[in-house]
Amino acid sequence: MASIQTHIPALAFTIDRHSKVPVFEQICTVIRTRAVSGSLTQGTRLPATRAMATELGVSRSTIVTAYDQLVAEGYLTSVQGSGYTVCAIGEVELAQKTPLPTPSKTQGDTPPTPHPFQAGRPDMRLFPHAQWAKTTARICRTDPRSMLEGASPFGHFKLRQAIAAHVADWRGITASPHQIIITAGSTDALEICTRSLAQEGDRIGLENPGYLPLRHFAEVQGLDPMYLDATGAGADLPPPGTAPRLVVLTPSHQYPLGGAMSPNRRLEFIHWAQSHDAWIIEDDYDSEFRYAGRPIPAMAGFDHLDRTLYIGSFSKIFSSALRLGYVIVPDPLIDGFRDTMRRFGQKASLMPQAPLAEFISSGEFYRHLRRVRRIYGERRKFLLDSLAQGFAEFGHFEDHQAGMQVTFHLNEGLADHAVSARAADLGVTAHPLSEYATKNSNFNGLVLGFCGFTPDEMAPALGVLRQALRAG
Amino acid sequence: MASIQTHIPALAFTIDRHSKVPVFEQICTVIRTRAVSGSLTQGTRLPATRAMATELGVSRSTIVTAYDQLVAEGYLTSVQGSGYTVCAIGEVELAQKTPLPTPSKTQGDTPPTPHPFQAGRPDMRLFPHAQWAKTTARICRTDPRSMLEGASPFGHFKLRQAIAAHVADWRGITASPHQIIITAGSTDALEICTRSLAQEGDRIGLENPGYLPLRHFAEVQGLDPMYLDATGAGADLPPPGTAPRLVVLTPSHQYPLGGAMSPNRRLEFIHWAQSHDAWIIEDDYDSEFRYAGRPIPAMAGFDHLDRTLYIGSFSKIFSSALRLGYVIVPDPLIDGFRDTMRRFGQKASLMPQAPLAEFISSGEFYRHLRRVRRIYGERRKFLLDSLAQGFAEFGHFEDHQAGMQVTFHLNEGLADHAVSARAADLGVTAHPLSEYATKNSNFNGLVLGFCGFTPDEMAPALGVLRQALRAG
Repeated sequence: MASIQTHIPALAFTIDRHSKVPVFEQICTVIRTRAVSGSLTQGTRLPATRAMATELGVSRSTIVTAYDQLVAEGYLTSVQGSGYTVCAIGEVELAQKTPLPTPSKTQGDTPPTPHPFQAGRPDMRLFPHAQWAKTTARICRTDPRSMLEGASPFGHFKLRQAIAAHVADWRGITASPHQIIITAGSTDALEICTRSLAQEGDRIGLENPGYLPLRHFAEVQGLDPMYLDATGAGADLPPPGTAPRLVVLTPSHQYPLGGAMSPNRRLEFIHWAQSHDAWIIEDDYDSEFRYAGRPIPAMAGFDHLDRTLYIGSFSKIFSSALRLGYVIVPDPLIDGFRDTMRRFGQKASLMPQAPLAEFISSGEFYRHLRRVRRIYGERRKFLLDSLAQGFAEFGHFEDHQAGMQVTFHLNEGLADHAVSARAADLGVTAHPLSEYATKNSNFNGLVLGFCGFTPDEMAPALGVLRQALRAG
Repeated sequence: MASIQTHIPALAFTIDRHSKVPVFEQICTVIRTRAVSGSLTQGTRLPATRAMATELGVSRSTIVTAYDQLVAEGYLTSVQGSGYTVCAIGEVELAQKTPLPTPSKTQGDTPPTPHPFQAGRPDMRLFPHAQWAKTTARICRTDPRSMLEGASPFGHFKLRQAIAAHVADWRGITASPHQIIITAGSTDALEICTRSLAQEGDRIGLENPGYLPLRHFAEVQGLDPMYLDATGAGADLPPPGTAPRLVVLTPSHQYPLGGAMSPNRRLEFIHWAQSHDAWIIEDDYDSEFRYAGRPIPAMAGFDHLDRTLYIGSFSKIFSSALRLGYVIVPDPLIDGFRDTMRRFGQKASLMPQAPLAEFISSGEFYRHLRRVRRIYGERRKFLLDSLAQGFAEFGHFEDHQAGMQVTFHLNEGLADHAVSARAADLGVTAHPLSEYATKNSNFNGLVLGFCGFTPDEMAPALGVLRQALRAG
């Protein structure tokens, strides 16, 4: 069979489409050879991927693969906006045999460092990586099978026991491990709940403002969202005559406003759920972070898990990379949830579960929690003091002594979207509050996260924020 | 404040509702003390949880928690159907201080050992736990941060590189790591695809018979499923005039029938997708298991990822406990998928990703794959020989020389549901084929998995299966 050969004037080489060597690897080989021999000199710009793809009659991704490969190997550099250029030859090591070698730390697509005041993320610089690695390594040594087998669809039993003990101590919830389902974070938990408790066309009560992904999948699931405005005492009750099948609440610390739901409003919701045969999902996303006073017990504990389901997450302590959360369900719902897990499949990885159970039981978890709470408390104080001292002309905030962010309500005349966009242009993140709310509501403010940043990092960002606010 | 005390005639004890000691722990304490003192003797049956809960005015789960706790500690035993009874006292160790001690291996809710011919699961007895633990421990030592941070929403870059190399070698797909998204298994991958590519009310083409969870969430998402009957050459094309936005296919090995889609049918689908501006999702769920001949290249490679997205999974090699899969998307779709990940959140745990990348790059993955393929090949041969020799009177099967299960089509007069139920009563699993299909179709057979069982385990199960078939 004759080879089909393609001639590329730009680099003057031919490729063999019937070779066993993939096309992208052929391109790599030619460029490597030229770079090493000196016929492609440092700084030479390669043809654009699209042009190269057209000329060669292959897909653009083949070219991108070849170029990226050569970037990873150090033959090329890629500069945003100006394409791929050839590196200095001295920098190059001869190609390895493995087709896709490990790139250096600066390559690949690692996410950019978060800027102040990115909200909702822990500061992973404070994370006890060594202790976590030690705990994991111990599981590798003593019980490696527990990372890959032996769990029910509800998750690793030891982790469910550790969570039962945790919520008993911290949240006033008495639950058996059998009621606890390990999930792939709190979003997965919310999906499992709505899939178990609601059907297409059912009404679901959501707080306004509230957690955005929840809205997205309520809509995708064909549910009919009904928005309950969050005020000082907590979300409004569903108006009489409307009958949502379930409501999702953040009673400990309204997301994103802050503030706890009043005991009276909690009781009203529980009575409402009892009399309407409805369910309350308590999303207790950051209850570990309370900086003064005693923790506010969970609504689910108050209600004895009668009409209330409880969702917790480890994302605010560990980073969302672990992807573990949980839902605690009332006894009579267990079979229905088991059926949901069977029908849709489970998404939580088993691998981190045994290490996490051990991390909690050994006390490392609480040691870390106490430490970050102290540090976050200092950062919070710095941000709140700075806002109180220097930002009163732009708006106001309430101090809820909890959580990982503060909401700064803007005065009339300032539009949160515009301020946020200006701040972003200057390298500072300030989420507009209106984005968490429905279109016709009046929420106007900035959601400012403080956990991820030291005072030294926040200070210049506050200067930028002031600049963005002044321009409004 | 006066204590509210509740008197329980059944056990004649009182509890203090204002005590700091949780109610369930109070119950535990009383029963422990009585058991140790001898006032509750071995074999005494405790009041039923429901009765106890009513009497005490607490939730049933409190009682279940207390009883389960005592089972875990060894004071009680729980016998299916006859409640909780007190153990012999000599067996008991005094209660530990921790509220929820680690149960023994036989407690908790570990899933039952699978029975032949449970389909779709690898045999974890063959898994190289020691090598996996060693690989993980090495990451713990050398790069612990990689388990918790530094990845983009698409996943760990080194794993995406390893997958790019894997699909290039094994599936004939040339893809850049940038096109690869790590997911929480293939179900998550399918959800991400449908959420990115289809909207409520859109038509989606699904194979009949096919993968059940896919149906469930297509329906939950408000999509309009259109069923494409799978025949010898592969799924039928959507009839003219119908216009699904996307189709989900298993061209390498139809699920669950077996059989590869003909090259001609593949081309027809690709042309159909091109001319209808539609997308093909190739679910390549078990392509690693081919026992004879060369692997059939993926449709996505053939199509150069133009209209075809490719879904792969590690569940069939590692057990579903790892919960990792991936989707490879055409270049122009990357931004849309990034937006989906942002809107709905990611579900794949980062923790197993670096160990898995290392496991693949070091060759351990392939060593394991070659080993299990040889063993599964032997098990497959045993099952197919047995069916050919002893079951011809009940039906027939085709040998597709691939996959992890075989479909045994039943003769008329035998109903797969009835046979499956009879086999289940006798402790043998044989999934009815009709359950994978729409209600009005004629599929009637048994889906028999062979990977998880040795010939010695399958031989008696075949006897039982024959008995269940005879009774039909």
